[in-house]
Amino acid sequence: MTQSIQAKTSPQGATQYLHYEQPFRFANGGELPRLDMAYETWGQLNAERSNAILILTGLSPSAHVASSAADPKDGWWEPMVGPGKPIDTDRYFVICVNSLGSCKGSTGPASINPVTGKPYRLSFPELMIQDIASSSLLVLESLGIDQLRAVVGPSMGGMSGLALLKLKPGVARHFLAISTAARAEPFAISIRSLQREMVVRDPAWNDGAYTEQEWPETGMRLARKLGMISYRSEPEWRERFGRSVQDHYEERLFGMHFNIESYLESAARKFIRNFDPSCYLYLSQAIDFFDISNGYEDMASAFAGIRLESAKIIGVETDFLWPVHQQKQIAEMLVANGIQSSFELLPSIQGHDSFLVDYDRFCPVVADYFAHIR
Amino acid sequence: MTQSIQAKTSPQGATQYLHYEQPFRFANGGELPRLDMAYETWGQLNAERSNAILILTGLSPSAHVASSAADPKDGWWEPMVGPGKPIDTDRYFVICVNSLGSCKGSTGPASINPVTGKPYRLSFPELMIQDIASSSLLVLESLGIDQLRAVVGPSMGGMSGLALLKLKPGVARHFLAISTAARAEPFAISIRSLQREMVVRDPAWNDGAYTEQEWPETGMRLARKLGMISYRSEPEWRERFGRSVQDHYEERLFGMHFNIESYLESAARKFIRNFDPSCYLYLSQAIDFFDISNGYEDMASAFAGIRLESAKIIGVETDFLWPVHQQKQIAEMLVANGIQSSFELLPSIQGHDSFLVDYDRFCPVVADYFAHIR
Repeated sequence: MTQSIQAKTSPQGATQYLHYEQPFRFANGGELPRLDMAYETWGQLNAERSNAILILTGLSPSAHVASSAADPKDGWWEPMVGPGKPIDTDRYFVICVNSLGSCKGSTGPASINPVTGKPYRLSFPELMIQDIASSSLLVLESLGIDQLRAVVGPSMGGMSGLALLKLKPGVARHFLAISTAARAEPFAISIRSLQREMVVRDPAWNDGAYTEQEWPETGMRLARKLGMISYRSEPEWRERFGRSVQDHYEERLFGMHFNIESYLESAARKFIRNFDPSCYLYLSQAIDFFDISNGYEDMASAFAGIRLESAKIIGVETDFLWPVHQQKQIAEMLVANGIQSSFELLPSIQGHDSFLVDYDRFCPVVADYFAHIR
Repeated sequence: MTQSIQAKTSPQGATQYLHYEQPFRFANGGELPRLDMAYETWGQLNAERSNAILILTGLSPSAHVASSAADPKDGWWEPMVGPGKPIDTDRYFVICVNSLGSCKGSTGPASINPVTGKPYRLSFPELMIQDIASSSLLVLESLGIDQLRAVVGPSMGGMSGLALLKLKPGVARHFLAISTAARAEPFAISIRSLQREMVVRDPAWNDGAYTEQEWPETGMRLARKLGMISYRSEPEWRERFGRSVQDHYEERLFGMHFNIESYLESAARKFIRNFDPSCYLYLSQAIDFFDISNGYEDMASAFAGIRLESAKIIGVETDFLWPVHQQKQIAEMLVANGIQSSFELLPSIQGHDSFLVDYDRFCPVVADYFAHIR
């Protein structure tokens, strides 16, 4: 409880901004008078404006997917994006957008409401995955990009990608979906719902009126630990930690004894105070609300409006939060819609997080896909 | 936060007690001046005292495994135990013991320390699974039972069963282990550790000095919900709840929207205030501390001292808290030790809890085992 790092809401370096000075209407009602959208780009847009790739992110990452001259810090997908890398910035103009509702530069519940001079917090409109898609489209429009070579979406980013493909059919020629889903299902909902409850039941949450001094650190710590549990896997931890005993933290009654416990504590300490609790709740809830088949007779009807030249869907055997049958479903629905699609199941043992750590398996598959699309 | 049901620490009806008026030494140090052990029995002990079956329980159940004339309420394993049922009380004298450290009649952290007149709480000695076994053995001795026909242990009860078989080799002729493990492994430890942290970080926990008025209800609620998540499975909830929307509880911001969320809330409300937080923490930690191979070169050496005529090990495909490889390990170790053992993997979709709900699959397997042992 001794940390006091400020929530990082002002990225610098390579971050660019779209200052959208018009009202933005949310899919489920409500609007904001204006928006900032933070993004980064790598590589050069060609003369035909036809080599752009948009990366949409999971719940927590910023737009800093890879290092660049302007920001040499490693990005969250450093081995995947760069010159000569699987998403090759020598060939492609790569854009990564910080999601609407996040706290890494784009407007979100932690942003200052220009009308009141105070953070939006719970006055922020209800956020849907569709809003993340439509606000990302504004960035593309501001860059003069009418059609993407590809949209890439891991985790929540795959949901945002699907929503984008529905919002503007033909906006991308190719689609790479990784460890994602066409809708939230109840087991994953139960985990995210419990994480949200951990935060809102922390007395310091104070119905969203938390301060720098009275901040729901306990709720965010518990939620992050449950996040880590749901992002990794039983076999990985058995192999990596076994029953080894920790010596990082002081032993106390019902405290940490095993290395797996100190690992989770360290992971939590890195996250809390680096992510705004309101933003976390809005984004987490947006995932649970997402069902691309909402308003359609069935999943196939929802996919019928999607236009693509090809799609690649990657899933991971040990991912129990975004389970394999959900990636298979996306592939099947796309194939049924006449889109050339392939589904690849990777035997990575790091669960949902595999795309962020098992580069030995992920890089060749992603490189192969981008080597073959035109 | 409006419930005020008293923790049920005084079972009645069919509950019998061993009042053990001697010091009880704990495996990891510490002792109590005396113990109460609560248990129930069904059926008749034969003249040879050779038809006794001992059931050791999971973390939370009482000794009331089945109804009887003295206590006609359904027990926690009602379809499994009774006249003509798989564990047939017309043939066997069945004993179920409430675990040492619990709060359902046996001495535990919620019991009154006769020296101080106050609950033990955190002054209770560190509890190990071995203590649950050795205190259960006191009950058998008080009943004049030198050897059991069988010991039956689901979940934590299987750990207690293994500890009992080590403590007194030959104490049981047969062993039925269900959805259990020979040691705690890091994925399950991470979940139980987070549950304990939920409780101890609740301000009302107050380092164990909680009162009826200031009680760690939030911590226990969150812990129970995570328990339910870890006890069931993704496929069950997908089939049972899908994305159906709840109407049990008032909708509020970041509150419950889906049926899966109201299901967890209802389950939590049933549990909290019915289980003492200190007892919960002691028992949960005892599971994590358990490794039957502690002090041995390897698992095989630990099993070498076990004497049995046969064993049956049952696991469930969808159990990710007590995963299948752990039941396989028990079976393999027993076979390597020359004990006739069979392992059966059931395709139940209810995860770890399957033995409590999927009676269509469990009853025939258990009945078959007991029909063949002599």
